[in-house]
Amino acid sequence: MNGGMKVYIIGAGPGAADLITVRGSKVLGKADIVFHDALIPEEMWRWCRADILRVDVGKRCGEDRPGRQDTIHRELVEAARRYRTVVRLKGGDPCVFGRGGEEIAHLAAHGIEWEVVPGISAGVGGASLLGLPLTHRDHASSVILLTASQAESGTLVDIPWHLLSSGRITIVFYLCMGKVGNLAQQLIRNGLAPATPAACLSRISWPDQKTVSGTLASIASAVEASKIMTPGLFIVGDVVAFWEKMGRIGKIQGAFAHG
Amino acid sequence: MNGGMKVYIIGAGPGAADLITVRGSKVLGKADIVFHDALIPEEMWRWCRADILRVDVGKRCGEDRPGRQDTIHRELVEAARRYRTVVRLKGGDPCVFGRGGEEIAHLAAHGIEWEVVPGISAGVGGASLLGLPLTHRDHASSVILLTASQAESGTLVDIPWHLLSSGRITIVFYLCMGKVGNLAQQLIRNGLAPATPAACLSRISWPDQKTVSGTLASIASAVEASKIMTPGLFIVGDVVAFWEKMGRIGKIQGAFAHG
Repeated sequence: MNGGMKVYIIGAGPGAADLITVRGSKVLGKADIVFHDALIPEEMWRWCRADILRVDVGKRCGEDRPGRQDTIHRELVEAARRYRTVVRLKGGDPCVFGRGGEEIAHLAAHGIEWEVVPGISAGVGGASLLGLPLTHRDHASSVILLTASQAESGTLVDIPWHLLSSGRITIVFYLCMGKVGNLAQQLIRNGLAPATPAACLSRISWPDQKTVSGTLASIASAVEASKIMTPGLFIVGDVVAFWEKMGRIGKIQGAFAHG
Repeated sequence: MNGGMKVYIIGAGPGAADLITVRGSKVLGKADIVFHDALIPEEMWRWCRADILRVDVGKRCGEDRPGRQDTIHRELVEAARRYRTVVRLKGGDPCVFGRGGEEIAHLAAHGIEWEVVPGISAGVGGASLLGLPLTHRDHASSVILLTASQAESGTLVDIPWHLLSSGRITIVFYLCMGKVGNLAQQLIRNGLAPATPAACLSRISWPDQKTVSGTLASIASAVEASKIMTPGLFIVGDVVAFWEKMGRIGKIQGAFAHG
């Protein structure tokens, strides 16, 4: 046992390599081994030493092998005992739908020091990057973040749709785009107006970034036409209409200005 | 008019200078003038040129002069016409309770190009930094972000407290710590159990960072004893109990490891 006995759990942000934090990029620079998600672009490795060990432990859209998370836990503990600087690199923020909490608990239970370096969660800063403000004095005073699995498990019916109807809350689903059609139908069945503004943002800050917008009634066909099938965001609420209006006044900026 | 006619709206993150994104730090490096919030630490200026013009347009806890936001809008437009690179630097993320949307709309309406560089919102990544996961398979499947003003305006009663009681949602208030006592009482009156886990995180990643935790019934006196009066987060839900338990197993990490 000559490892550093410390694991850094780092959020890589939505995609583009320069949307990681300065701290995250510096820790990557001293890493010996990196256990990474599927959604890490090749350019992210520019922060690392050339002899870095990369271990891909990512799941793909909709896939979750039984036991996968247990394997990651075991590998992180083993690596902490062997290597000086171990990194667990996750897309977005490690603790927002990222199972960072489970990994921290496992490391702590094995007496291994851990440190979280937060990242830009796609559903929060990713929307900001595209100029879509999740809150706005005139349009939304709160934000709720969810996953599509809540729709599948039936807990979706517990969401206070009347709040959304009154336009004071922005709802953000993290999901695979293939699920948008069913989800939009469910939302309408649960009482949301078919005309409620809705947008899908996919692969924010990646070269193949795509956005479509419309209403709950129209969004499914827009997604289908755009052939978006990757993970992304489904955002519902009045801020989407505000964002579309701004797009017409000015020009939506920011995705690739810095490569 | 020899300005660059472009304004970068940058999120500085929760505090520590290295929790800004790499992109944010690089844009700051070429800025001629920076309009900044109150909650920007002195160390953040290390990314800027020595001859940078700093304009403090920040409001302090609880204060919001009438007309302040209009003045900012006007000054940003004027600066874009005079300077090559204009930055609006905001604590956290510009578009999460940050009025970034209003500034974008104003710039767009005046034909000025804008670009958002997202930042770590304290209420999302700031909690992660301290190892407090906002979502967790066993404790919370969604997160709602709010401000205390929703309590003041009476819209708090619209929140689905029964969801919180069942432990499937984490609630995050961005507020001044002086308001925690009243808010906790309101939450209990609205049906939340007095034993619901609750934590206050203040000045995350700053040298004077403080955290206290307990229950809705006990949190007000804990805040009072700690003399926290700065802006911060009030987090309610089962993830707080999970976080406290991890704190006992391991050691809460990460706030100042990188100075």
